[in-house]
Amino acid sequence: MIAVMDTSLLIADASGAAATPTAPTTPASLLPSAPESGRQPLYRRLADHYQSAIQAGTLVAGDRMPSVRDLMRQHQVSLSTALQTLRHMEEGGWLEARPRSGYFVRQPRRSAIRPVQEPKSLLAIDAGQFVGIHERVSKYIALRQAGAPHIDLSGMTCAPQLYAVETLKQAAMRALRERPELLTSAMPHNGNATFRQAVARRALNAGMRIDTEEVVVTHGCIEALNLAMRAVAGPGDTIAVESPTYFGLLQALENLGMKALEIPTSPHTGISVEALELAVRTYGNIKAVVVVPNLQNPLGCIMPEDHKDQLVRLCDQLKLPLIEDDAYTELADGSVTPSSLKSRDRNGNVIYCASLNKVLAPGMRLGWMNGGRWHERVKMLKFTHTRANEEWTQVTAADFIASPAYDRHLRRLRQMLKQQRERMAESIAAYFPEGTRLNLPNGGVGLWVELPVQVCSQQLFERALAEGVGVSPGAIFSNSSRYGHFVRICCGHPFNRELDQALRRLGGLVHHLADA
Amino acid sequence: MIAVMDTSLLIADASGAAATPTAPTTPASLLPSAPESGRQPLYRRLADHYQSAIQAGTLVAGDRMPSVRDLMRQHQVSLSTALQTLRHMEEGGWLEARPRSGYFVRQPRRSAIRPVQEPKSLLAIDAGQFVGIHERVSKYIALRQAGAPHIDLSGMTCAPQLYAVETLKQAAMRALRERPELLTSAMPHNGNATFRQAVARRALNAGMRIDTEEVVVTHGCIEALNLAMRAVAGPGDTIAVESPTYFGLLQALENLGMKALEIPTSPHTGISVEALELAVRTYGNIKAVVVVPNLQNPLGCIMPEDHKDQLVRLCDQLKLPLIEDDAYTELADGSVTPSSLKSRDRNGNVIYCASLNKVLAPGMRLGWMNGGRWHERVKMLKFTHTRANEEWTQVTAADFIASPAYDRHLRRLRQMLKQQRERMAESIAAYFPEGTRLNLPNGGVGLWVELPVQVCSQQLFERALAEGVGVSPGAIFSNSSRYGHFVRICCGHPFNRELDQALRRLGGLVHHLADA
Repeated sequence: MIAVMDTSLLIADASGAAATPTAPTTPASLLPSAPESGRQPLYRRLADHYQSAIQAGTLVAGDRMPSVRDLMRQHQVSLSTALQTLRHMEEGGWLEARPRSGYFVRQPRRSAIRPVQEPKSLLAIDAGQFVGIHERVSKYIALRQAGAPHIDLSGMTCAPQLYAVETLKQAAMRALRERPELLTSAMPHNGNATFRQAVARRALNAGMRIDTEEVVVTHGCIEALNLAMRAVAGPGDTIAVESPTYFGLLQALENLGMKALEIPTSPHTGISVEALELAVRTYGNIKAVVVVPNLQNPLGCIMPEDHKDQLVRLCDQLKLPLIEDDAYTELADGSVTPSSLKSRDRNGNVIYCASLNKVLAPGMRLGWMNGGRWHERVKMLKFTHTRANEEWTQVTAADFIASPAYDRHLRRLRQMLKQQRERMAESIAAYFPEGTRLNLPNGGVGLWVELPVQVCSQQLFERALAEGVGVSPGAIFSNSSRYGHFVRICCGHPFNRELDQALRRLGGLVHHLADA
Repeated sequence: MIAVMDTSLLIADASGAAATPTAPTTPASLLPSAPESGRQPLYRRLADHYQSAIQAGTLVAGDRMPSVRDLMRQHQVSLSTALQTLRHMEEGGWLEARPRSGYFVRQPRRSAIRPVQEPKSLLAIDAGQFVGIHERVSKYIALRQAGAPHIDLSGMTCAPQLYAVETLKQAAMRALRERPELLTSAMPHNGNATFRQAVARRALNAGMRIDTEEVVVTHGCIEALNLAMRAVAGPGDTIAVESPTYFGLLQALENLGMKALEIPTSPHTGISVEALELAVRTYGNIKAVVVVPNLQNPLGCIMPEDHKDQLVRLCDQLKLPLIEDDAYTELADGSVTPSSLKSRDRNGNVIYCASLNKVLAPGMRLGWMNGGRWHERVKMLKFTHTRANEEWTQVTAADFIASPAYDRHLRRLRQMLKQQRERMAESIAAYFPEGTRLNLPNGGVGLWVELPVQVCSQQLFERALAEGVGVSPGAIFSNSSRYGHFVRICCGHPFNRELDQALRRLGGLVHHLADA
């Protein structure tokens, strides 16, 4: 994910003891910014420069970093920039300080942590279950609310300050000044035309051809998912879902009187297309499949492009409606956005459900959808359930989304999230016991952590809550008991000492539960 | 509805030809304002003064009104106020101008129109039907949208300028300035606490004891109704509803896979409690009843207080959940608000669903509910369907609702609606054929008009649309064909010549269809 840079400027000392680049010196101001990061501060560019060298193996663990004085001279930076560079790299786990000797290269601890295990079989399917997950989820939500954890890592929401508060506020003020009657006028069905156009245009850039008229604005992605499932299935019907999957989906399914059939899902490549095919051929009555192809919740994986092709083709052949849940795609690292399933849709078999809660602003509750060949039914269901979204929020969002400021915001957000994920993974690697596994996802807001198998994450949830820390126990992501030793941890908050200490406490509890 | 005034100051001429009050003269500035109307302009108070005299029989049809000069002298008003008074009374149907003779008293035409007929029997019940009303409604909505009528009288929404646009805009700006992070923060479950407190306090004043914690904020009343029905019933279950009833309710029921059992409802006293009891005893499987006790949609009736008592008692005895739909109560004429069913609820059997769309602002899409003894389930269903409402709108609304400006706004709104209803009824009486019936409701936004029985209101709907006028055909308010010759007409727009002409065109079409 970190862009390849010219590391020829770094010449490691042949002795291996000190990596002091000699001539020619490179002014830090000439170092490139990572393409996805916009214009970075000098110390960040300098740190990236050395981190790339470590990743490329030009510098290896144990190498001595150039001293403060070296950095100042070689890169023509101030004392403060040189110090910031070293401190930033130390915080990121790339360097360790040895008293009176300076800084030495080390591999981040997180690189030692092993990845989450693949499912035992990518073909073993549980029959559709319907076991009252909503009680489990409701209990968890009620407990978390009552507990009001001081540090809440249970959601998938970023901290408010990660968003463009001031720009949005200005857009909102503008909307109010120019069109105050939006507050007191009945709303257009299906949403404000300018907002629908703004999201349709972005979808077009992402390879999806969706007319403005074919957009229905919803209250977040969860309403879109509810409408999608109601459009293609009724009570008693079975819907195939990923395993593990977002608990909100399981809860919604149960409340609609539908059954969930969990399809094995790889933490690296996403839903098993083979298992889905087998499931449909075995249990003929599956009415749809819901998939998060990019930055799956909770796994964090992005489906490889050829898996996406296969999935869309299979659903097409089987005439199985494919519901795409797209809440996180724009939070993927790098400058190339992973492709959607919808962009592969040739005959309206994909119902596309998007959320702007994570990428634009959690407080605006905006989502949208295209119902594919069920679009008319989706429109009718939206009308009968919540009519239309208030227009003012949409006008504000459209203003922002259509401006260059939106992409700048997204670049900044992605960069901050990447840093936050890495730092949290570093703390987890430091504080959690042997046997803990996690995948560092290439984007998004969450870490899916596999704890030693004897750890009950519901116990962990309750004890952590008592210590003021909120997490999401694995048990709520499935109707099965398969994820009882997993936990989902939110990386949406800027990393700081308090967060580090919270993870230390959490790690202590995991140690305790693992040893019990 | 018009306050009783001292009419002793008006002394009708014994000859009956001219009603010229003699001494003592009354300065118009000393005339009282109607108590519900706030401070009215002089000409309005003077007009009310004479209108009361007509209603009280002090002045009768054919009497000559005092001349402009008389009015100026007797009430110490300017020429312009005297002229405005006479013109206002003429527009309201209280006076007619005879060339070169002056103004003469007449009964408003609307007083000659007969009321809507009672149902044939208040006990004849149709078995629960399930006949695809949503297709009928969807077709109607699609046609109306495509037709984009220039004058749309099909909704139940007031014109934007009837609301406190400027006050709301200021409140919204304040909220943005003081708490811009509302835009980018995750919302509290169930709604913003200040807003919930504001509506709970108003409910308290209306006799309902609902804690702030027992309020769930919803996207309008329609979401509340959906949640209420899902809380107490499932697919295949039957819900008792008024007949006729709001089409949105029938559509929602069908989309939830539930059946509607229509209970005879009087256009004067509301749902027949006897018929409801009979229905429950006959068809044991009724899961709930949905009632609009005040300003029923489309009938416009307010249930007498003792009927409300009986209804709540019966539902309690039968353990039949009673879902109260309260969208219009605060639009009732007069200074005393009709009571709710919820205010009679002793053990949580009433699920209360309120809308602020009609009273506060249609563009803010705010509703709220209390789930009675199903409140926990309601909260969970809200969470799984649309999570929580965006907070900014609620903060804005709370600011306004808690201020004295809100009651001032409501008084003004009620007064304007009364005037609009009366003027529209006057035009209907003038332009619609013999045999047209309507009740002039004591509040609200709509008129329910019974046309001559041979008129098909769906044909009327289509032809009117072709002429740029939107109305709601009776057929969509029931699964039966009972209301095929009814039409609902919105009175939410300030009356003007264009509206009068639209009703003239509509009347012409009704004539044509009645004669065909």
